Amino acid sequence: MQVNTHLQQLKGNYLFTEIANRTQAYQQAHPEANVLRLGIGDVTLPLPPVIIDAMHRAVEDLAHAETFRGYGPEQGYHWLRQAIIDNDYTPRGINLTPEEVFISDGAGSDLGNLSELFDAANSVAILEPSYPAYVDTNRMAGREIIWLPCLEEHNFYPDLPKQKADIIYLCFPNNPTGTVLTRDELARWIEYARTNHSIILIDAAYEAFIEDPNIPHSIYEIDGAQEVAIEIRSFSKTAGFTAVRCGYTVVPKATGLQAMWSRRQCTKFNGASYISQRAALATYTPEGKAGIQANLNSYKQTARILSAGLCALGYTVYGGKNAPYIWCKTPDKMDSWAFFDRLLNQCQIVCTPGVGFGNAGQGFVRFSAFSNRKDVEEALKRMKTLA
Amino acid sequence: MQVNTHLQQLKGNYLFTEIANRTQAYQQAHPEANVLRLGIGDVTLPLPPVIIDAMHRAVEDLAHAETFRGYGPEQGYHWLRQAIIDNDYTPRGINLTPEEVFISDGAGSDLGNLSELFDAANSVAILEPSYPAYVDTNRMAGREIIWLPCLEEHNFYPDLPKQKADIIYLCFPNNPTGTVLTRDELARWIEYARTNHSIILIDAAYEAFIEDPNIPHSIYEIDGAQEVAIEIRSFSKTAGFTAVRCGYTVVPKATGLQAMWSRRQCTKFNGASYISQRAALATYTPEGKAGIQANLNSYKQTARILSAGLCALGYTVYGGKNAPYIWCKTPDKMDSWAFFDRLLNQCQIVCTPGVGFGNAGQGFVRFSAFSNRKDVEEALKRMKTLA
Repeated sequence: MQVNTHLQQLKGNYLFTEIANRTQAYQQAHPEANVLRLGIGDVTLPLPPVIIDAMHRAVEDLAHAETFRGYGPEQGYHWLRQAIIDNDYTPRGINLTPEEVFISDGAGSDLGNLSELFDAANSVAILEPSYPAYVDTNRMAGREIIWLPCLEEHNFYPDLPKQKADIIYLCFPNNPTGTVLTRDELARWIEYARTNHSIILIDAAYEAFIEDPNIPHSIYEIDGAQEVAIEIRSFSKTAGFTAVRCGYTVVPKATGLQAMWSRRQCTKFNGASYISQRAALATYTPEGKAGIQANLNSYKQTARILSAGLCALGYTVYGGKNAPYIWCKTPDKMDSWAFFDRLLNQCQIVCTPGVGFGNAGQGFVRFSAFSNRKDVEEALKRMKTLA
Repeated sequence: MQVNTHLQQLKGNYLFTEIANRTQAYQQAHPEANVLRLGIGDVTLPLPPVIIDAMHRAVEDLAHAETFRGYGPEQGYHWLRQAIIDNDYTPRGINLTPEEVFISDGAGSDLGNLSELFDAANSVAILEPSYPAYVDTNRMAGREIIWLPCLEEHNFYPDLPKQKADIIYLCFPNNPTGTVLTRDELARWIEYARTNHSIILIDAAYEAFIEDPNIPHSIYEIDGAQEVAIEIRSFSKTAGFTAVRCGYTVVPKATGLQAMWSRRQCTKFNGASYISQRAALATYTPEGKAGIQANLNSYKQTARILSAGLCALGYTVYGGKNAPYIWCKTPDKMDSWAFFDRLLNQCQIVCTPGVGFGNAGQGFVRFSAFSNRKDVEEALKRMKTLA
């Protein structure tokens, strides 16, 4: 048996595992330390009551013969797919059918598995810095990667690829830089993809953080996008579902890929948890919408406080508006991991080293706003001692 | 962009989708008909109270700041991995560490995704008849398949591959034939794999149906198996979790694949639902064990009634002992789909056409025991009119 050498040769330590390991080592050496975790983009606020109630009811359904459920449709329950269309797409003038919406156990799985739709020989363009899974997934498949640097001197906007890119991974609002694209900027990417017969995979996990009315919430707000774009969304950051596990991916029939993705999912996936799908449905009720909006407002406030506080301490910061991430330049061109270690050792603060998102992230760290006001204010107080 | 032509060229209709389509068409044409579903292997009995309570508590954890959880470990919570070892392996004399046990959202995902560990050029040996996903997954990856026919004249036991097989998919207790392997028979496969440097992927989803003390519950009961075998298990059939979604896969370090699988999961999977993992943990409590055993006993009784009833009607049947599936020869060498249609149209019974599991399944249909006594007795009564 020959192993997949592409997978075997991948660097061993995944970014977030390395952060967890260093944090754990520090915590073990300093058991009394109150470590503030502003690194990983994980939600912290409890779920709204209407979502909790929906999950209790779904659990209860499984307790009684009359309401018991077994396997659901691999692509997700029709009621959830329809609710997504009715709430997330129709109001923005986007026409989709339930067959084009695929419920999953989260965007992470879909972003990894969508790679299977494509031949290994395709070229892949990936923003740099970028969420590491896009890169690792394509390296596992043996694909060459075209880097699209997002640099400070261009306000972290990527240029269109100079060579032909077959598959393009986008993420807006961007993780880690917090950059967002206007309608016109997004339209340039659609035009590129249509001209070059490329496919765009857009990770829209942070869509709910958009506040600026000029920023489109879905790529399908741009004419022609349904022919060249797959949009991946998640309830993780929108509704706090990182433990619940539910997301969805839109594969329009116009891409020519909808039947293939359906076949893939029917073969290698047995559907998302019934309880998680009921929870997702509850996010579209009036109480659900209000509840998740209250949590989002809290995270947005944290982002504003953190962003303003870092500025006041003399740091150069980007993002944090229309996005939950703050992209912070290290002082004195310091190495990302060195600044990570300094923050951990001197301030007991965990951030994410920018270089973990690719070489173009060197000299930056990412702070996440998925925290609370108290911790962020405490973090800023501690960072004063560094200056 | 070039699509994955292996995936594109796969036959469009997945077996269970085709069954669902034909059943739905019949039901729409005959809305008054009471269709008895003895086809798909989906559980029907409600979950035991202790598991329901565990899920309610897990849901409630997500409602309060003090107990809220976000992302869990991609490989699953340590408490569940340890409980699996303590209950499913240590009592059988098998030594494993929690790092070798990976929690997933179900065996279906793992059986599909494990294919990524291996180079596309490996040869793959698959039993015929077989669960279609093994075949489709490897066809999507572009691998050649070596068929290992399991024929009636050999009591549905496969022979060892005549040509060298790099990857071997086994499933015991077998879906669809119900065949089980003794310790000595399983040892021959381990020896083959060790001699030929093959890897065995064994789907042990139906392990809980084993009653015969001579049948091993885990492949690791055989010496040397940890070097050449990956075991895939599921709470779906054991504990009725087809809606809940939880399974696990054991990748022993001795296979040399444990680190690669961990890397794959950390990149493309964000962990199983916290609620599902709490539910799985509850299956190992004394009340949980008693509750799932009561459900299993009910399914086993259904299997016995169905098996004996079909025999009494003159059918030749296999399986149904140590396994939830009954493999039934069609009358007069009838085609599998033709008999499926006859049962649906004349008796309003849904079975699974054997040929859907591969050509060696032609002339058979599979009945599932995941039903109740009442439905099975009604089905047998209706089938009397056929004879």
